[in-house]
Amino acid sequence: MTESDVLAAVLDRVDHDLDASLDRLFALLRIQSVSTDPAYASYCREAADHVAADLRSLGFDTSVRATDGHPVVVGKSGKNGQNGDANGKAPRVLFYGHYDVQPVDPLDLWRTPPFEPRIETLDGGRKIIVARGACDDKGQAMTFVEACRAFKAVTGRLPLDITMLIEGEEECGSKNLFGFVRDNAAELRRDLALVCDTGMWDAQTPSITTSLRGLVYEEVRLSCADRDLHSGLFGGAARNPIHVLADVLSAMHKPDGSVAIPGFYEGVHELPPDIKADLAGLQLTPEKFLGPIGLKIPAGEQGRMLIEQVSTRPTAEVNGIIGGYTGEGAKTVIPGKAMAKVSFRLVGAQDPEKIRKNFREFVQARLPEDCHVEFGNFTSAPAFDVAFDNPALTKARAALAEEWGKKAVTVGAGGSIPIVGDFKTVLGMDTLMVGFALDDDRVHSPNEKYDLKCFHKGIRSWARILAALAS
Amino acid sequence: MTESDVLAAVLDRVDHDLDASLDRLFALLRIQSVSTDPAYASYCREAADHVAADLRSLGFDTSVRATDGHPVVVGKSGKNGQNGDANGKAPRVLFYGHYDVQPVDPLDLWRTPPFEPRIETLDGGRKIIVARGACDDKGQAMTFVEACRAFKAVTGRLPLDITMLIEGEEECGSKNLFGFVRDNAAELRRDLALVCDTGMWDAQTPSITTSLRGLVYEEVRLSCADRDLHSGLFGGAARNPIHVLADVLSAMHKPDGSVAIPGFYEGVHELPPDIKADLAGLQLTPEKFLGPIGLKIPAGEQGRMLIEQVSTRPTAEVNGIIGGYTGEGAKTVIPGKAMAKVSFRLVGAQDPEKIRKNFREFVQARLPEDCHVEFGNFTSAPAFDVAFDNPALTKARAALAEEWGKKAVTVGAGGSIPIVGDFKTVLGMDTLMVGFALDDDRVHSPNEKYDLKCFHKGIRSWARILAALAS
Repeated sequence: MTESDVLAAVLDRVDHDLDASLDRLFALLRIQSVSTDPAYASYCREAADHVAADLRSLGFDTSVRATDGHPVVVGKSGKNGQNGDANGKAPRVLFYGHYDVQPVDPLDLWRTPPFEPRIETLDGGRKIIVARGACDDKGQAMTFVEACRAFKAVTGRLPLDITMLIEGEEECGSKNLFGFVRDNAAELRRDLALVCDTGMWDAQTPSITTSLRGLVYEEVRLSCADRDLHSGLFGGAARNPIHVLADVLSAMHKPDGSVAIPGFYEGVHELPPDIKADLAGLQLTPEKFLGPIGLKIPAGEQGRMLIEQVSTRPTAEVNGIIGGYTGEGAKTVIPGKAMAKVSFRLVGAQDPEKIRKNFREFVQARLPEDCHVEFGNFTSAPAFDVAFDNPALTKARAALAEEWGKKAVTVGAGGSIPIVGDFKTVLGMDTLMVGFALDDDRVHSPNEKYDLKCFHKGIRSWARILAALAS
Repeated sequence: MTESDVLAAVLDRVDHDLDASLDRLFALLRIQSVSTDPAYASYCREAADHVAADLRSLGFDTSVRATDGHPVVVGKSGKNGQNGDANGKAPRVLFYGHYDVQPVDPLDLWRTPPFEPRIETLDGGRKIIVARGACDDKGQAMTFVEACRAFKAVTGRLPLDITMLIEGEEECGSKNLFGFVRDNAAELRRDLALVCDTGMWDAQTPSITTSLRGLVYEEVRLSCADRDLHSGLFGGAARNPIHVLADVLSAMHKPDGSVAIPGFYEGVHELPPDIKADLAGLQLTPEKFLGPIGLKIPAGEQGRMLIEQVSTRPTAEVNGIIGGYTGEGAKTVIPGKAMAKVSFRLVGAQDPEKIRKNFREFVQARLPEDCHVEFGNFTSAPAFDVAFDNPALTKARAALAEEWGKKAVTVGAGGSIPIVGDFKTVLGMDTLMVGFALDDDRVHSPNEKYDLKCFHKGIRSWARILAALAS
C-alpha cells in the first residue's frame, strides 16, 4: 500500500469504528475520576488502570506509576511497534493527556447524571456527547488513542515511535507531574510533544496553539513611616506609600498602552506577515471577546489587533493592591505600608530575570526619599513558542486543513500551561497543541459536552497528523 | 482697686492657694471616670457630680444634665455673677472641657496606680503631677476653674459672664454632645468659646490654636469587567480598574506636591506676614517632627514650611486602597473592581461641597470607556479659623506673653475637633483654644503627667486672659 492508501484505509476504519470508539469513551467517562477530592482516589486509580489496559491492548509497553498523588500512566511503543520509518527522520513523539476530571458540583444543575454519558441530539441535528470529562480531557485524549487504534487495526502497528504520558492531577495543578518528568526525563525525552487539551478557533476552523505566554510575578511592598499616622496631624508632611505606589504603577504604562519599563520589549518579535494576516482573518472582535464580560474597548497596546493583545504581545498587569484603611466608613489614616502584586505576561525571547530586574530598577528609580521597597518573587517562566517554520507544525497544519477543508490557524494562548514549559526546558522538546474543544463545551461546568463531530473528526485529524509526521 | 490691682491680687491668691488647688485637682483625679468602659459609668456620674458641686461653690447655677451616655455638667454664672462690665463690651464666654479620661491599660506599665495622683520630682527639680487625667483634661480644665476661684476669692464675683460646659464623653467621640449642643443652643450660645485641651508650643512658649483643618472624605469605587478575569486569557485587552485607579490617584498631585484638582485652592488664603514670620520662628524641623516616625523629608507642597504643610495648607491623601488579590502568594487575576478612600484636609474658606464636586469631576474626566465609578460620601466639615485680628485673640496673646515672658504663637491644628466646628456652625461662636500640655505628657498612655509649672502658670494664664477679656 502507498502511504496515501494506508491513510485512506485508516480513515475508513475510523469512520466504521466510530460506535465502538464511543463505547470505549463512555466506559472511561463512567469512571468518577475527580482528582481534587480525596474521596474519589480509588476512581482515579481505576481510571489509570483502565487507560493502561487500553494502551496495552494497542501494543504499548504500559505501566501505572505511583506518585505522591494519583498515578501516572506511561505507555511506550518503542521502535518495534512503529510502522517503519522510511527515511529514518520521523520524530519520536510524546503524547500528553489526563484522565482526571473536575468536580461535578453544583450537581443539581446537571440535566442528567454527570457520570452517565449519553448522546444528545440538538435542534438542527447536531449531536453532542454529554458527561463530565466528555471534552476535558477524556474525550480529547481518546481522539488520539482511537487514531492509534485505527492504525494498529489497519497496519498491525503504530505509525510512529509514540510514548504516552497520561496523568491524573491536571485538574488540581499537576503538582506531582513536574517532579515525575524531571525524574524520568530520559524515557520521556522524545523529539516532539503532542497535546490534545485545547480548542478549535470555531466549529469550522481547526487550530494549533503554537505559543504560550510566559510569566513573571512580583510583589512590591512599600514602607514609609514606621507606623500608621493620623492624617490630621501628619497629612501634608508625611510621605504616603499609597501615593508612591500609585505613581509607580501609573508610570508603568504609556498613554498608548505600551509598557514603559526600559528594555521590556527586548526579545519581542513581530509576527511573520502571513501569520499576522491569518490572525487578522480570524476577525476577533471586541463584541465577541469582550462583550460577554461587559466590556467594549480593547485596553492594550494601541495599533495592535485584539488577538495580538491577548496572545502574542507581552503585558504588565497589577493583580492586586492594598494599603491603609479598607473597611466600612471613614478612617483618616496615612498608612505606613502599601503593597501591590504585579505580573508580566511574556512572549518570544523575553528574559524573565531581565524583566524582573528592569522592573525592580524602574520601581527603585521612582521612590522618593523616605520610601523603602521590598520585593517578593513568586513565579517566573519564559514564554514558549514553536517556530513558525517547524516542519512538524507545517505538516500538522496541512493535515488539519485537509480534514476540515479550511486552513488551520496557529494561535497563541494568553496563559501558561506549565508542563508544556517543562517539556521545553527540562526535556528540550517543542509541543504541538492540537485540540477540538469548542467555546460552548462548558468545560469545568455542569452539562459538559463534546461535539460528536469534534470527536469523530478529531480522531481523523490525529490519523492524518500521525501519517504526515511519519512520512 | 484698679483693674491691674485686681489682677495682681488674683495672681497672688493663685500662688498662695496652689497647694489647695492641687488638693482639689487630686480629688478629681482619684475618680476613675473612664468613659469608654460601661463598667466605670458610676465613676463618670461621680465625676460629674463632683465637678457640679465645685462649680456651685463658685456661684455657678449648675446642673448635671442626662444624655444617652454620660451626663453633661452645665454651669451658668449669668450677668449677676460677673465682676461688672465696665464698657458693656466684655464677651460672654462658654468654657468647654471634659471630666472623662482614657482607659489605663496596660496597667502594668504604670509605675504607680493611675488613680492615686502624686507629685514626682524629676532630676533637675522639675515637678510633675502623675495620674490618669493629670493633663487630659482634668488638669487642664482645672486651670480655668482655679482661675475663676481666685477671682471669686479676691473680688467676690466672677470676672465675666461665664457658662461652663463639661462633658463626659470626649474620650469616646463626644457622640451625645453634638445633639446636646443643638438642643440647648439658646443657653450655650455666647460670644466666645474657650477650650483648655491643647498644648504649648514648647515648655517655654505659650500657644493659641486658632485654626483647625476641615475634612472631606470620599470613597471611589471603580468597576470594569462584570467579574474577575484570568490575566492569561484577558491580560492585554481587558481594562484593569487598578490601573485606572493608579492613574487617577497619581494625577491628583503635581510634581511640586500641590493638589492638581481644579479649583482646589479656591478660598485658601496666604497667612499674614507677621503670622508667617511667627511660624518660621518656631523652627519646626523635619528632624523634630518627622524623625520620631522614621521619616526625614517633608512630602507636601514644595516652597511651604513644614509647619504650614501640616496646619495651614490643605491636603489630599489616599487613606486606603484595595483591589484584586491581596493574600499570600500569586494569583493572576484582573479584578473587576477596585476601591480607594480619599480625604481632603481643608483650610480657610475652602467649600467642602465644591471640593467634593470638583474631585468627582476630576475622577470622571480620567475614566476610560469600560470603567464605571460610584462614589461614597462620608464626612464633610469646613475648616475652622479665628480671624487673626479677632480682639479676644489679641487680648489673650498679650495676656499669655505677659505670663510666660515670651510671645504667644498662634498655630493651626492639622486635625479636626468636631465640637469646635459645631460651636462655629451651630452656635455662631469663635473658639480660642489655649492649653498648657507638653509633648512629653504621655496623654492616653501609661504614666500620664502634667508639669506642676504648667498647672500653676496655666491658672495664672487664665486669670490674665479673663482679666483682659473683661477689660
